[in-house]
Amino acid sequence: MQPVYLDNNATSRTDPAVVEAMLPCFTECFGNPSSGYAFGSAAAAAVRSARKRVQALVGAAHDHEIVFTSGGTESDNTAILSALNVMAGRDEVVVSAVEHPAVLTLCRHLESDRGVKVRIIPVDGRGRLDVDAFQAVLSARTAIVSLMWANNETGVIFPVAELAEMTRTVGALFHTDAVQAVGRLPVDLKETGIDMLSLSAHKLHGPKGVGALYVRRGTPFAPSILGGRQERARRAGTENVPGIVGLGKAAECAMDTVSAEGPRIARLRDRLEQGLQQRIDGTHVNGDTTARLPNTCNIAFEGVESDALVALLDRAGIACSSGSACTSGSTEPSHVLKAMAVPPQFLRGAVRFSLSRDTGEADIARVLAVMPEIVGRLRKPMPSQPFNQPSGLVHA
Amino acid sequence: MQPVYLDNNATSRTDPAVVEAMLPCFTECFGNPSSGYAFGSAAAAAVRSARKRVQALVGAAHDHEIVFTSGGTESDNTAILSALNVMAGRDEVVVSAVEHPAVLTLCRHLESDRGVKVRIIPVDGRGRLDVDAFQAVLSARTAIVSLMWANNETGVIFPVAELAEMTRTVGALFHTDAVQAVGRLPVDLKETGIDMLSLSAHKLHGPKGVGALYVRRGTPFAPSILGGRQERARRAGTENVPGIVGLGKAAECAMDTVSAEGPRIARLRDRLEQGLQQRIDGTHVNGDTTARLPNTCNIAFEGVESDALVALLDRAGIACSSGSACTSGSTEPSHVLKAMAVPPQFLRGAVRFSLSRDTGEADIARVLAVMPEIVGRLRKPMPSQPFNQPSGLVHA
Repeated sequence: MQPVYLDNNATSRTDPAVVEAMLPCFTECFGNPSSGYAFGSAAAAAVRSARKRVQALVGAAHDHEIVFTSGGTESDNTAILSALNVMAGRDEVVVSAVEHPAVLTLCRHLESDRGVKVRIIPVDGRGRLDVDAFQAVLSARTAIVSLMWANNETGVIFPVAELAEMTRTVGALFHTDAVQAVGRLPVDLKETGIDMLSLSAHKLHGPKGVGALYVRRGTPFAPSILGGRQERARRAGTENVPGIVGLGKAAECAMDTVSAEGPRIARLRDRLEQGLQQRIDGTHVNGDTTARLPNTCNIAFEGVESDALVALLDRAGIACSSGSACTSGSTEPSHVLKAMAVPPQFLRGAVRFSLSRDTGEADIARVLAVMPEIVGRLRKPMPSQPFNQPSGLVHA
Repeated sequence: MQPVYLDNNATSRTDPAVVEAMLPCFTECFGNPSSGYAFGSAAAAAVRSARKRVQALVGAAHDHEIVFTSGGTESDNTAILSALNVMAGRDEVVVSAVEHPAVLTLCRHLESDRGVKVRIIPVDGRGRLDVDAFQAVLSARTAIVSLMWANNETGVIFPVAELAEMTRTVGALFHTDAVQAVGRLPVDLKETGIDMLSLSAHKLHGPKGVGALYVRRGTPFAPSILGGRQERARRAGTENVPGIVGLGKAAECAMDTVSAEGPRIARLRDRLEQGLQQRIDGTHVNGDTTARLPNTCNIAFEGVESDALVALLDRAGIACSSGSACTSGSTEPSHVLKAMAVPPQFLRGAVRFSLSRDTGEADIARVLAVMPEIVGRLRKPMPSQPFNQPSGLVHA
């Protein structure tokens, strides 16, 4: 039976059209884009074309506002470090309690090692930013605000365009980690006051190891990786030509599908979510369901350990996630759900299903078919079969 | 006619076997290695296998000494920044005048922005390190020494194992940018005192956008990119699984070929070099020819501008380089040749030919056949045909 992959917020399958676009870059158009001769110019042209496709996907006014990086984490780190370097006299960073580790881990490090003051804005029980608290901390000391467009664990969307406007009033820079939003929501940066935006190819059916940082024209900027003058001296290192071309193709595919696929995926997600709630008692959907990514469902099952649930679903050929992939392996409950003060009986039993344009009706039907039995099993006391060693019940 | 590609120090063609190894990672084994379930474990296993192959290629004692990065520049930056963070009370960096921009640009920045003292060691006319000057600057203030294994422009090899031993006597860390050496020379790190080593996949017929930093077990280390706990918390960000697998396969191929191919490539390089010297007057080979990469020939032609020469060779279907790809586009003469005090009549006419295991007899014959005429043309005064607009003479 085909596996059911519902962990697209961790990573998505590379579109075969993307792979096809990348292939010539390995063995034919393999030159170094910085070289002047024909081999190099062909590679440089491929990079230029990819840059325009990413520009189009995020609605940037200029193609040179797109800086290619190695991925979302590098982009996030670079944005924050850059702002602290270029915003003279400003030493505060404002983030939310539910940001990705690529933001929060860096911030903790900057606070302990470099004396940066990090202002962490709380969220409410539905994962929505406390906008009053946000406005209260903005000041002439704020170097940068970094707030995610959409949360990776709950899919909850922050009103980043408005938050960027508020940020402008104190003269700080506004960055958004839009790794989960780009390709899933329409994005039109030129209509916003967002100064920097991070995106990652592998969340939108592109390859791993490549992403971009949007840097609005005129935004003061200091690079994180220094060396050659690639990317207009904003990111040194030989360009990852196949990866960049793959990201470009993924951007083009997402442009073509985002409007039509969003509603279809949301319908499937809603069917999954409602179906689980109808079939299983003691469930709880985490996160605001009115402003949420179309593809994400974070749902908790009372009396169940999410790691055990994920493991049993895995045996049933269904991939989903407890918490984010970046923190899995850790036994700590999700910092996102903790920040939302999710009730204890639901905190440890939360599972994330994240769909994509590859997801079909049959996938949802499979999950709905197996979940009641799995949750039922996990809720029964099994003294001889502890949760972390479930055995042989699922393939039936 | 097949193009002749002799710019392998800029980048090399990805081996089709490498591409084949990467392909399943895009659309089949596409999971996030940090995810616990089956999709993730298959990707994690692929990364583990690649790590062992890179370990084998560089002779590391432990596979976890290999940290995957986005390439040589990131590896170089990370090594130096890490040392400055972890070596308490030490604020000096020692480098040579001929290091790659990934080292020198970072060092200039650290000196101007962070008050780091950078000690730049000169080289002699053949590109060899002034070892006395090197020993003289080592002190209890030295945090890290970063000296390249082999120079990208001349191929000149530094005695890094000995330089690492000298560095140990003052308790500093030793890093080597071995981007041009790994895969071309036998490397056995466990027999040396080298603490950190940078390598890049695309210089050894692997993909662009991936590399590694070797960090000897026990070496104090501070990561540059913070976020998730990937790579044992030494390099955050979802692993570039296809790229890492490609690097692993490239490492395996290099292991199989480095001993046999080195001498063959050196014979071809010597035939090219001697052939050019025999056929053309006023040539000058730059760099020590006794301790040099087998694949590199840096040769200057009196009375010729190297950019014009590279352009005419390009029209003849031959790719080579003036200076390194990372600085091309710049009209400045090479900082490497300037540091070697190459005579002015040769400084501006230097061209780099860099071979690979893809290079054959016919490639060398082609270059030898066209070069005398091209150099002759460029040496003639051509008032109506400036060097940057040569026309129609070469395809004959």
